[in-house]
Amino acid sequence: MIERENLILPNGKGWITLASLIAEKKYSKLFILVDENTEILCLPIFYIKMEEMNEWKILKIRDGEKNKNIETCIELWQELLLEGADRHSLVINLGGGMISDLGGFIASTFKRGIDFVNIPTTLLGMVDASIGGKNGIDFKNAKNQVGTVNQPKLVVIEHSFLKTLPKEQLISGMAEMMKHSLISSKDSWNRFVTSDLNDKAIFENLIWESIEIKNKIVQRDPLEKGLRKTLNFGHTLGHAIESHCLDNPYREALLHGEAIAIGIILATFLSTELLGFPQNELLEVYNTIESYFPKQKFSKNEISNIIKLLSYDKKNIGGKVLFVLLEEIGKPKTDCFVSDSLIFNAFEFYEKS
Amino acid sequence: MIERENLILPNGKGWITLASLIAEKKYSKLFILVDENTEILCLPIFYIKMEEMNEWKILKIRDGEKNKNIETCIELWQELLLEGADRHSLVINLGGGMISDLGGFIASTFKRGIDFVNIPTTLLGMVDASIGGKNGIDFKNAKNQVGTVNQPKLVVIEHSFLKTLPKEQLISGMAEMMKHSLISSKDSWNRFVTSDLNDKAIFENLIWESIEIKNKIVQRDPLEKGLRKTLNFGHTLGHAIESHCLDNPYREALLHGEAIAIGIILATFLSTELLGFPQNELLEVYNTIESYFPKQKFSKNEISNIIKLLSYDKKNIGGKVLFVLLEEIGKPKTDCFVSDSLIFNAFEFYEKS
Repeated sequence: MIERENLILPNGKGWITLASLIAEKKYSKLFILVDENTEILCLPIFYIKMEEMNEWKILKIRDGEKNKNIETCIELWQELLLEGADRHSLVINLGGGMISDLGGFIASTFKRGIDFVNIPTTLLGMVDASIGGKNGIDFKNAKNQVGTVNQPKLVVIEHSFLKTLPKEQLISGMAEMMKHSLISSKDSWNRFVTSDLNDKAIFENLIWESIEIKNKIVQRDPLEKGLRKTLNFGHTLGHAIESHCLDNPYREALLHGEAIAIGIILATFLSTELLGFPQNELLEVYNTIESYFPKQKFSKNEISNIIKLLSYDKKNIGGKVLFVLLEEIGKPKTDCFVSDSLIFNAFEFYEKS
Repeated sequence: MIERENLILPNGKGWITLASLIAEKKYSKLFILVDENTEILCLPIFYIKMEEMNEWKILKIRDGEKNKNIETCIELWQELLLEGADRHSLVINLGGGMISDLGGFIASTFKRGIDFVNIPTTLLGMVDASIGGKNGIDFKNAKNQVGTVNQPKLVVIEHSFLKTLPKEQLISGMAEMMKHSLISSKDSWNRFVTSDLNDKAIFENLIWESIEIKNKIVQRDPLEKGLRKTLNFGHTLGHAIESHCLDNPYREALLHGEAIAIGIILATFLSTELLGFPQNELLEVYNTIESYFPKQKFSKNEISNIIKLLSYDKKNIGGKVLFVLLEEIGKPKTDCFVSDSLIFNAFEFYEKS
């Protein structure tokens, strides 16, 4: 069902549809955007899957969130021009969230918009970044400040790319899966907590469930007028933590999921304080996340800086930072005001638990 | 009629609607984008028209097409961030086509898109640039290579801004009015040729007619799948001439309309050669344009360079440069192939007539 509605297609079906799309649209040129990693690890798989075709032009960028910026965009727009890309060219984003965010933005703005396809190669990309049409780049230490909302022509989900991922990247993607379950239903959360994630078939089913949760939400509210905001659970502080670590020379950058995992714990604590979210479920969320993600430490000054970064959050209205919290699992509430002192308490809970 | 469909509103009605829009949407912050000229000449008029409100923040950029680039965008995104703009802020573009092109792009990409309003202060802006939602910037010597299609919330047409314009700017806008008439109908063209443009009321009616022609086309085909392409009559070579002069240290930059005026003559000549457009009407078009616009001279080398620049035209498909030509006045034909040698002939006709 999901497949027909939004053209998110798993494995074999995705590749066949990509081939038909290219044949039907008669694109003038075919570009594949890769980074240093996906060029080596994923492009060979792409070539095998699409062996009938061979007229690809490769656009290659440096790996890592720190390159998701306007300078990289300028390089890519220029390369597209030099390579003779026109309005009927196609860009295929082969990579994780950084590639689909940046490649989606490039394609959405080159000559006022050309077609693009997302082929996520990370777990995070599959269950989150590649779906819903949000694209963009970081700007002046704040995440995704410049971008558009524009749907890809197709998303190809190919589970075998997951084999190319280092373990921490796989775990990073699980933060978004947890978030999807937490905002969706107790059943979904329980399935996540109790399933054997080492069983390939079970894990792939959970991935598909996660894709479906996100896709249903973004289809009902593509421009984030209401429902889609719930997807920001854990992201308000998560993004600020991510920006803080990216920008701080004394800290190692966190993977997106690593920052979001902390953000989920903090937001769940705030939910307990402000909306009466059950204490025992807070501990379950905490323990589940702690079983996958290494604990981080933040000084008082760092927390202050993180709170300062909240002011760049795109969901803010009139200077107020608004959170998505949970009344209970599966019952998100948007536009919740949270005081700075309660945020300090949340960090204290996270660090002391 | 047009007013309800697309919220393009003349004079008094436009200002009242802008005030209601701001009241209704409760924007968190109101930004006005101006350049060095419109700050001095148009902002005072704006303040008088909107005297009930006073919480404006001014974004100021340097005047001129050469600043319609990514560097100016970076400055503006940064200023919006520093001034605390959020998703519920409004950008009002007060200026000519350069301001609405750039401001529309900034607003369409800041935090993945915020509302914007166009208040064109030039004739060109009123009859063309502010309508239809195309925005963008020039990139690497080629026009509007980066941008989006995204409609403004409202376009306010205030004729009294035209009094602030130098004469050549007013005439520049007339090139687009001529184009609208030429692709629309013989009646419209005859009205333009035979009317006394010094009569204020007659001229304002012609402006409104021109807005209606453009608006009907962009409403029927917002994403330029077919019909909207006809608006590119005169623009294929016109844009290349404009880029050539902008980039050439030995030439003075042409105003957009001045370049388009030449483009219209060239395209009409090509129409005669390729589609049997009537010779006598070619001369009428030529004479009408020559009565307003100064003649330019181009060397063989310059014409070669202009032809080279055609390859960046956004309408190109698969490396072929495609023109909009006229079978007769009011009957445009899109996707016409034109050889380089015929383009040389067209320049010869233009210069020798």
